[in-house]
Amino acid sequence: MTDIAATIRQNHDQESILRGAAEVFIQHGYDATSMGVLAENLGITKSAIYHHVPSKEYLLQLALDRALDSLEAILVDPLASTGSAIDRLMYVLRSSVGVLTDQLPFVTLLLRLRGNTELERSALTRRRAFNQVIAELVDQARTDGDIRSDIDPRTTTRLLFGMIGSVVDWYRPGGPVSAEDVANDVVAVAFGGVRAR
Amino acid sequence: MTDIAATIRQNHDQESILRGAAEVFIQHGYDATSMGVLAENLGITKSAIYHHVPSKEYLLQLALDRALDSLEAILVDPLASTGSAIDRLMYVLRSSVGVLTDQLPFVTLLLRLRGNTELERSALTRRRAFNQVIAELVDQARTDGDIRSDIDPRTTTRLLFGMIGSVVDWYRPGGPVSAEDVANDVVAVAFGGVRAR
Repeated sequence: MTDIAATIRQNHDQESILRGAAEVFIQHGYDATSMGVLAENLGITKSAIYHHVPSKEYLLQLALDRALDSLEAILVDPLASTGSAIDRLMYVLRSSVGVLTDQLPFVTLLLRLRGNTELERSALTRRRAFNQVIAELVDQARTDGDIRSDIDPRTTTRLLFGMIGSVVDWYRPGGPVSAEDVANDVVAVAFGGVRAR
Repeated sequence: MTDIAATIRQNHDQESILRGAAEVFIQHGYDATSMGVLAENLGITKSAIYHHVPSKEYLLQLALDRALDSLEAILVDPLASTGSAIDRLMYVLRSSVGVLTDQLPFVTLLLRLRGNTELERSALTRRRAFNQVIAELVDQARTDGDIRSDIDPRTTTRLLFGMIGSVVDWYRPGGPVSAEDVANDVVAVAFGGVRAR
């Protein structure tokens, strides 16, 4: 947190507070993060935070909107709505990994939501609608004969989500594996498996 | 929790308290679960709990040992130590999913550990040693030409772990997908991918 805290101290604005807050929420848990805890971790005063945002709920809302807006934008692309279901599915999954690596703290918060508040439940509803599009693409690709039929389609969808979602646990920007490699590798393993052929 | 609570009220012993405690730890978070919170959720008195276990740390230790002992037992089987690396890898992964579905609350706790205490760090060390065996099998199978070489072996291992670990998020005993089907499907997707061929 020290780098972020230093940046925020020097030049705090809503964007840097939002990014810092997302990291603090991930580290301490949203429920356990009071505005006091947040201020302490960001190295600024509570009033400096209140100058930019009215509440911690507002910060969570901004963070979740950032993740959800980016994911939903994928579905608006013609590549997500035209062509075969398998190609659209691959496009949506690859792009989802791109959003995940690009908006890492925000997507991490989205994936760890428990639905304790109205705000969280509303975000979960949007997340489910996004997931539902993917589930329907899996179903359609299976009907087309492009997805294996020996596995229950719900299980197929869940394992795809599981693999993608797990990327937030280990991907770090600037680490040894580039964001582009992660997206390529997830799609390669998800569709082709790890076995050499 | 009501079914578990009812069982514990009627006939509480260390085993039922352990299983109930694991569910409460998962639901509320281990750190946020005091012995008072635990007693309330289990529907018994604190002194009834103390009759069977000395502390909540002891319950966590028992839960984590249950998960880790079961996972480590996989590696002792001859199928995990003889034959080709790819066959051993498939055996270990399939068996790991079996432990996960069989010991669901305990493995869930293990996977969500943050390492805040000495006890947690000690369990994480054992978890890492187990994961290291799998990472070495991936490396060996890759050297043998049985695992695709176009993906970084660390990424391969992480995506395998990600897919397996995500099963705790949706698998429920007695649900529509049997434990055996889950294990088969995870191995099928992990090694062959979801694409029909």
